[in-house]
Formats: sequence, structure tokens, C-alpha cells
Amino acid sequence: MFITFEGIDGCGKSTQLELVEKFLIDNGKEVLTLREPGGTVFAEEIREILLHSHHTISKESELFLFEAARADLVSKVIKPALEQGIIVLCDRFYDSTTTYQGYGRGFDIQTIKIINNLATNGLKPDLTFFLNVSLETSQQRVANKLKDKIENSGDGFFKKIIDAYKILATEEPDRFVEINSEGNIQNTYEKIIEIIRKKLLINY
Amino acid sequence: MFITFEGIDGCGKSTQLELVEKFLIDNGKEVLTLREPGGTVFAEEIREILLHSHHTISKESELFLFEAARADLVSKVIKPALEQGIIVLCDRFYDSTTTYQGYGRGFDIQTIKIINNLATNGLKPDLTFFLNVSLETSQQRVANKLKDKIENSGDGFFKKIIDAYKILATEEPDRFVEINSEGNIQNTYEKIIEIIRKKLLINY
Repeated sequence: MFITFEGIDGCGKSTQLELVEKFLIDNGKEVLTLREPGGTVFAEEIREILLHSHHTISKESELFLFEAARADLVSKVIKPALEQGIIVLCDRFYDSTTTYQGYGRGFDIQTIKIINNLATNGLKPDLTFFLNVSLETSQQRVANKLKDKIENSGDGFFKKIIDAYKILATEEPDRFVEINSEGNIQNTYEKIIEIIRKKLLINY
Repeated sequence: MFITFEGIDGCGKSTQLELVEKFLIDNGKEVLTLREPGGTVFAEEIREILLHSHHTISKESELFLFEAARADLVSKVIKPALEQGIIVLCDRFYDSTTTYQGYGRGFDIQTIKIINNLATNGLKPDLTFFLNVSLETSQQRVANKLKDKIENSGDGFFKKIIDAYKILATEEPDRFVEINSEGNIQNTYEKIIEIIRKKLLINY
């Protein structure tokens, strides 16, 4: 079982991911928690370049670096873990590339999907939570945070990203679950856990 | 005018590229000589990871790193130089990805072409010299050289690469010129210069 968490910064992904991890462990599951880009030595090096480098990187180079890191993470960590029956939780996965690089930066979506598929060797998440908050809520939540390069892309950019996630949710309704995360942490958590219980057949 | 040099290691690319550079400068042309991967600070960092890193890199990550370096080189160096009327000579370009990663490592060729096109923003060389030598000659020429990761890929791999270059030469006969470089340096040089004279209208 491979579960990913998507949404703009400040949507609550990382918080919910930690809570879900705890829930699964409490229910006797073996869990591996990852974040993208990252999760291997090589991918963390790429993360450094992507988010904090002083180079100006073209949008094409940015895209390819994300995919290089992803390919490494999938082949070395995610696939081996899934083969051992471990539940993998990942903070962002290829849907972030489709939304941020495809819809956000304006790359052809079909091309992005071909490249994503190559990087993941065809691996798809079984379940993807899109935590949806308004731009206003997101900005309030991250107001005091030091922003990285991508987080500095401006409002118009993030509006496009939210719309793009909604399109993906419509395209793959079985995998992609939109969760309204405007409310408090407990509220959002309960909605997520409800779905995970059903999917993993965990009783109350 | 954008001219690239292709072929397996030991085919004489780098030697001929230097001679062509000298010829063009002697004929009053402004020339920029580059190598792939490399040519920008960012791309040289990627080159280090690709050719000398101690990480094991998956073939997918390898492909994406080549493209990340290429996208940077094209947008920051090659396109601006061409716009200023400078002749750009490059030791390897996207045909190396088609042959080494596509035909060599077994990626789908159509996918490779889509990715190459994305990295170069549609830029194509005006002229590509494929310096063709037998595997035996190539090995004699590089016998004493310290090999990098890709050069260590074995004979079967390089036979595939030679065949792949021949396919590309058949597909794009106007751009792709196969030059037999089994002979000595002067011999190969004269064949190349003959073609460059015609293309650039440089008289004897």
C-alpha cells in the first residue's frame, strides 16, 4: 500500500502524514515515511540544489532534477519497501510534478505524464490525499516560515496549482481523494483516517 | 551555425573538434567550443555526479541528470551564443542520449526524443559529425586512458551504440554526416573540413 499526500504549502500535509503514520503503527502496521524530493543520499543532494542553490535553474532543469531524485527514490527505497509489504507514506509524489511543473510552469501535461511514468517505472500510488485549503488559509499558516525557491513563486502560481489538483482529482477519482483541510487538525485527520480504515480494512 | 561531434570514445571527436575550432578561427569566425555534459557551473556539477560519483545511479536518474545539464547549457550558453552569430561546436549533444540511453540502456526511443526535445527547447544542430571507428580501433586508442563510469560499460554496449549512430545517420541524412575515422588524424580532418567549407561557404 502506497499512500501519497498532496497540496500547496500550508495545507497540512506534513502534519497529517505524521498522524497517519502514528495511527498505522498503533494498528500494528510497518510504515515507511518519505518526502519528495529526498529520501536517498543522492535525492537529498538534488533537493539541496533544487530548493536552496544560488544558481538560477531553468524550469527544464528543475523538472529533470525532480525526476532524477524521484527515479532514485522509487528504485532504491519505495519499490523494495512495497515488495516487503511495508506501507509507504510519501509527502508529495509525481502529482506535484504534474501540478507544479505541468500546470504551474506551463509544460505540456502529456509530456509530463510520460516523464513521470519513466521516473517511477510505472509505479502509481494506491491512494492520494489532496488536502485542499484556500490560498488565504495557506498563507496564514506559513506566514512565519522561511520560504524556499518554489514557495516564493507568487499567488497566481498557487491558484493554478490548486485548480490543477482539482483536475487530477476528477481524472482519477478512485485514487485521488480531495479532503477539505480548512478546519482544525483533528477534523481533517478524522476524514483521512475514515478513508484509510476502509482501504486497509482496519476496524474501529 | 551549431555543429556537434558524436561517436564512441576513441573515435577522435575531441581531437577533430579542436582542429575544426582552429580552422574556423583562422578563417575569421567567432567560435564557442563546449562539451556535454558540462559547459555551465551547474552542468559541470552534474557531470561530476554522472561520471565520477560513488553513488550507484539508476539508468533513469542518469538520463534525467544528462537532460538537466543539457537544458542548462542550451538556455544559458548555446542559444545566446547562436543568437549573437557565434558558431557553436559541441562535443556530444542529444544524439548521445538517443544512442547511449535509448539504444544502449534500452529506453523507448520515442520517449527519449520527447525528453531531448524538452531539454533543448526544440534546438537542433545544423550539422552533426558521426566519427565512426571500429570497436577494435577505439579500444587501442583509449587503452591507456583512465575510464569513467560510462566508458566501463563493456563491448556489447558499444557495438549497440555504433549501430544506433548508423540508424540516426539514415534517419536524418541532411544533418547527420558519417565520417570514417579509422585513418590518421589528417585524413579524417580533411573529410570534415571539406563539408564545413561547403556548409559555411568558406573558399580554399
